[in-house]
Amino acid sequence: MTHSTLAPLQAGTVTLVGGGPGDPGLLTVAGLEALRQADVVLVDQLAPQQSLQVCRPDCEVIWVGKIPRGEFVPQQRINQLLVKHARAGRRVVRLKGGDNFVFGRGGEEWQHCADAGIAVRVVPGVTSSVAAPALAGIQLTHRGMVQGFTVVSGHVAPGDPRSDLDWTALATTGTTLVILMGVHHLAAIVDALMAGGLAATTPAAVVARAGHPDMRTVRGELGGIVALAESISPPAVTVIGDVAALRLDEVPGRPRR
Amino acid sequence: MTHSTLAPLQAGTVTLVGGGPGDPGLLTVAGLEALRQADVVLVDQLAPQQSLQVCRPDCEVIWVGKIPRGEFVPQQRINQLLVKHARAGRRVVRLKGGDNFVFGRGGEEWQHCADAGIAVRVVPGVTSSVAAPALAGIQLTHRGMVQGFTVVSGHVAPGDPRSDLDWTALATTGTTLVILMGVHHLAAIVDALMAGGLAATTPAAVVARAGHPDMRTVRGELGGIVALAESISPPAVTVIGDVAALRLDEVPGRPRR
Repeated sequence: MTHSTLAPLQAGTVTLVGGGPGDPGLLTVAGLEALRQADVVLVDQLAPQQSLQVCRPDCEVIWVGKIPRGEFVPQQRINQLLVKHARAGRRVVRLKGGDNFVFGRGGEEWQHCADAGIAVRVVPGVTSSVAAPALAGIQLTHRGMVQGFTVVSGHVAPGDPRSDLDWTALATTGTTLVILMGVHHLAAIVDALMAGGLAATTPAAVVARAGHPDMRTVRGELGGIVALAESISPPAVTVIGDVAALRLDEVPGRPRR
Repeated sequence: MTHSTLAPLQAGTVTLVGGGPGDPGLLTVAGLEALRQADVVLVDQLAPQQSLQVCRPDCEVIWVGKIPRGEFVPQQRINQLLVKHARAGRRVVRLKGGDNFVFGRGGEEWQHCADAGIAVRVVPGVTSSVAAPALAGIQLTHRGMVQGFTVVSGHVAPGDPRSDLDWTALATTGTTLVILMGVHHLAAIVDALMAGGLAATTPAAVVARAGHPDMRTVRGELGGIVALAESISPPAVTVIGDVAALRLDEVPGRPRR
């Protein structure tokens, strides 16, 4: 009975750990400690793989895929594995890239475990939606410039019947817009935002592989960002709004990343 | 020349560390390591204070306030202190609650240091805007329910001439709405959102002191949340949208927080 995420893991439970954008330094202290104690770890490709070095030699590490648009273990199977290993009395850790509750399906995993009577703990992580811009020198809010930010999935294109988003409203809230999983549909997204009223001159940036050694950022204006981002492969985070022009990464004397 | 946030701190530089919502387990590994190496730490009240235990005995810890609506050291003075200590050749850490770039004025601090020729490193943190809901069992996105979330500051009321936000647009994006620093103006915010088209029956929750031992959550509908939240003191995070009704915290057998 402790408030801290640092309490020891219990046998037969599942801990959902947000791993951050990939840099092992951006895993939380509690997340690292959970890996140290785990009997089983179910891990995605985008999670901080170096951090698994702290797992015990007898810890079972199960790769469950989730490469963007690549092969993966179906979510239903992941849910089943979580319950199976917890029922066997093991301390199970589910390690994701970013945060489990930001497009991470952590809620579905939690619900599935709950339905099976398995106790779940959540260790929130550093979400790539905030960290990727920050590592590129882009702050999502800036006093006197913008009072909020909006994070959306670009996995489904605007106009697709599966989309629940109102892109005209998104263009007019006055917040910085952050698009995850938006590389594939970037052209359609840009069109929808300009049709919704955003100027073609609105600053924009695409940050690829944030927190990884091969991180790369392209910057420009909304109207030209699709061409600039042509060579970018997922995973990438797109930022649209005045803050994308701040260019804090060009600070004199800053250690280069 | 390393990509990792774990590279040793350099003399005469400033490292902006996001401390997470307050639980020492939710500081990042790189953030904790930065504290271990620091010669000077400038820290806010909402940062994870227990984590300062890893600082060296000769590390100078400077409290710079920032209690919500309470006394504080002016931002200009903080900027000056960062530059002063870095110019003296010290390894300076600026430890904030949450993430420095989400209403944390990290950009202003970075810019001020840059103007003075001081190198800056950023260690992103766990933002309370995501972690507070997660710790209360609320996931900001849920597949099949919502494809994004919007984080805004409630520090300035809707209709205030200083507000840059379009609250009607915010009511209609289709994303989960997260309001930080919104306790004081909650009634005006709820009115603006309902005037913008959000139903009074929209699920809503207020999470206070997330990541602290005295964390508390109230849940209800948008139309009644102001009355329910009457006894809540800042800091608190308000969540509005269907996900606020998921109640994952009522899982059988879940370790109570």
